[in-house]
Amino acid sequence: MEKIQEKTDCEIRTLSIVVDNIAGVLYKVTSVFSRRGFNIDSLAVGTTEKPEYSRITVKIHASEAQVKHLVSQLEKLPCVCKVVVLNETSMVQRELIVIKVKADSKTRGEIIEIVNIFRGRIIDLSPESVIVEITGEDDKAEAVIRMLSKFEIIELARTGIVALGRGRHTIYGE
Amino acid sequence: MEKIQEKTDCEIRTLSIVVDNIAGVLYKVTSVFSRRGFNIDSLAVGTTEKPEYSRITVKIHASEAQVKHLVSQLEKLPCVCKVVVLNETSMVQRELIVIKVKADSKTRGEIIEIVNIFRGRIIDLSPESVIVEITGEDDKAEAVIRMLSKFEIIELARTGIVALGRGRHTIYGE
Repeated sequence: MEKIQEKTDCEIRTLSIVVDNIAGVLYKVTSVFSRRGFNIDSLAVGTTEKPEYSRITVKIHASEAQVKHLVSQLEKLPCVCKVVVLNETSMVQRELIVIKVKADSKTRGEIIEIVNIFRGRIIDLSPESVIVEITGEDDKAEAVIRMLSKFEIIELARTGIVALGRGRHTIYGE
Repeated sequence: MEKIQEKTDCEIRTLSIVVDNIAGVLYKVTSVFSRRGFNIDSLAVGTTEKPEYSRITVKIHASEAQVKHLVSQLEKLPCVCKVVVLNETSMVQRELIVIKVKADSKTRGEIIEIVNIFRGRIIDLSPESVIVEITGEDDKAEAVIRMLSKFEIIELARTGIVALGRGRHTIYGE
């Protein structure tokens, strides 16, 4: 049964996990994914509105049955306070991408034009390169990278997605 | 000797780690930190300019000797291609923070004013709340959170820092 589901509804899923802000927690959480052979598409960890907690946002490619199983495994960990599978339509998701692009006096103008269209910012400048920051969802990231590729992307770092549910409700269901 | 150093030069360090983009790598990397009892302040994982690699940016509180030891342990992992300890003055570091703030028709104006000063953006709006995105370094994040606290922060997610060296050189030393 699970095998059939795997084939039919495997898609990108976003999990938001609130955990205790103590040593070793990320290791325990990633071990749950690792033991089941999941490759994590993106993962972001940062502090929250409560200093005793951290929030881990994970994107994985999985079926509904697999995600259900993952959530139940994560909930068994004492360091995990809350796990929510975010719904694509009722969340805002954002990622930060920092891109170092080859640029000289001839190409800089066009690069700045592209960055402005995507509402990005130039955050570093050297005679041979610029560093650009852009925030957005996956599609936007891909579009920017595609547009800047023609100037040669020297280096690129992505934070992974963070996501919050729309409206005033929180992950804790308050 | 190491004990003395721990006391004298323990500070925030940023490590940039390029790894193979395969299942289980994050688990192996976090285990190196976990086994030594380090609490990771922030961690971001995302794809890079080369699809076969991911980049992990980690911030930890450690002494110089501890970091040296960590780097040598990380370099022993077959899935790790490159580890660099980034130098505060020669890198640009950025984080994305998404904050859900309580807001009604009376307070919304002032919130938007604060967000504009910090060059942030409103990315969601409901009758009782707004969601704000801000990018910057640690200090800016703290300042924004402090300013928005008076309206009540409902929920908050941070991506963790990503960092690139200034100028045209890459992590690979090219």
